Amino acid sequence: MKLILVRHGESEANFQNYWTGWLDVDLTEKGIEQAKEAGKRIKNAGLLIDVAFESVLKRSIKTAKMILQEADASFVPEYKTWRLNERHYGALVGKNKDIIAQHFGAEQVKKWRRGFDEVPPLTKDNHFDRRYNQLDPRLIPTGESLHMTSQRVVPLWQDQLAPNLMDGKTVLVCGHGNSLRALVQFLEAVPTDQVDQIDIPNATPIVYTFNSRLEIIQKEIL
Amino acid sequence: MKLILVRHGESEANFQNYWTGWLDVDLTEKGIEQAKEAGKRIKNAGLLIDVAFESVLKRSIKTAKMILQEADASFVPEYKTWRLNERHYGALVGKNKDIIAQHFGAEQVKKWRRGFDEVPPLTKDNHFDRRYNQLDPRLIPTGESLHMTSQRVVPLWQDQLAPNLMDGKTVLVCGHGNSLRALVQFLEAVPTDQVDQIDIPNATPIVYTFNSRLEIIQKEIL
Repeated sequence: MKLILVRHGESEANFQNYWTGWLDVDLTEKGIEQAKEAGKRIKNAGLLIDVAFESVLKRSIKTAKMILQEADASFVPEYKTWRLNERHYGALVGKNKDIIAQHFGAEQVKKWRRGFDEVPPLTKDNHFDRRYNQLDPRLIPTGESLHMTSQRVVPLWQDQLAPNLMDGKTVLVCGHGNSLRALVQFLEAVPTDQVDQIDIPNATPIVYTFNSRLEIIQKEIL
Repeated sequence: MKLILVRHGESEANFQNYWTGWLDVDLTEKGIEQAKEAGKRIKNAGLLIDVAFESVLKRSIKTAKMILQEADASFVPEYKTWRLNERHYGALVGKNKDIIAQHFGAEQVKKWRRGFDEVPPLTKDNHFDRRYNQLDPRLIPTGESLHMTSQRVVPLWQDQLAPNLMDGKTVLVCGHGNSLRALVQFLEAVPTDQVDQIDIPNATPIVYTFNSRLEIIQKEIL
């Protein structure tokens, strides 16, 4: 019963240092190489992936493809869900992090980035395509705190990840910095005033092993 | 209600001229480019893919990925099924087509390749990995005629493809020369003595448009 969490490889936005949230930016060439390397590490660790979960954003989907290819698991079922999307950064989306820091101060930016309940300024224009057409429109955020992100990530654990683990499967989850931070916080029961210490680096597999009560018995970074 | 059939791009086996069947060979560089080009044509035709079906063989899965990426549809649900696998060529798998023709004669080889009920010599060693672990072992063939291939492909049409089309979806199917030949034969009701005339070129989208009774009203090659 193993859960492998992987944040996507370097994206164009990571590289250019702006907030993305639900923007559908691509991986850089370096990001693709990082994803392949993550897949090789998973293979070399002898892990046999049985099922994969991804967000509906291409940086996560592409990272998963690369990992599955490298780890000889292209054929496993893949599920894509908005619940694993990056935290929605509201009106900060598309803005350069340094410029925003100059305007609002580093302290405020740190709160937006690392706090649990801090909600960014809300956006008025969500320009989304057909991928969210079947969602209740009220589920599409205009800006989320990490807490709000957690509230949409945890049901995925409850409904999909936990049952697959209980079924003895090795589960790959390719997510984003904050959707995975929310999941790690939930799994490890990290107090909300310490969530700022959870850091999820790009394309670095975090492997949890569970016992039959879904308690963590090992955590490894590959 | 549109069904897009695409055979995978050039594989290493196409290039080296040997029978593959269920062997999991990769695409060549040319095959990857062909798959991207197929995706561009689908995009340029204004087709919005809603769901994708693939075999469990990587040449089909990779072709689908490339098409979905190029056609701005990475986020759609993907389903992988052995029912779309290439016809199992029995003991011919791994054998060079020219050498077999020298041994058995071009006429016999043509029958094996193009007949409807002709079964190839059966294999005694199917070396398969965990991807078929959950299948009834009796479903794993030791050699198939096109007729036998059709019998496992048609249930996919009945259970998955037809319901999605009836639901108004645009459905992508990435298959193989013979699994798609079986599907085309079924859809167009081609007499079994004429199946040898059905040719499915690599990475060339075949687009069927249906009416509400699932009757074909248009067929286009992109």
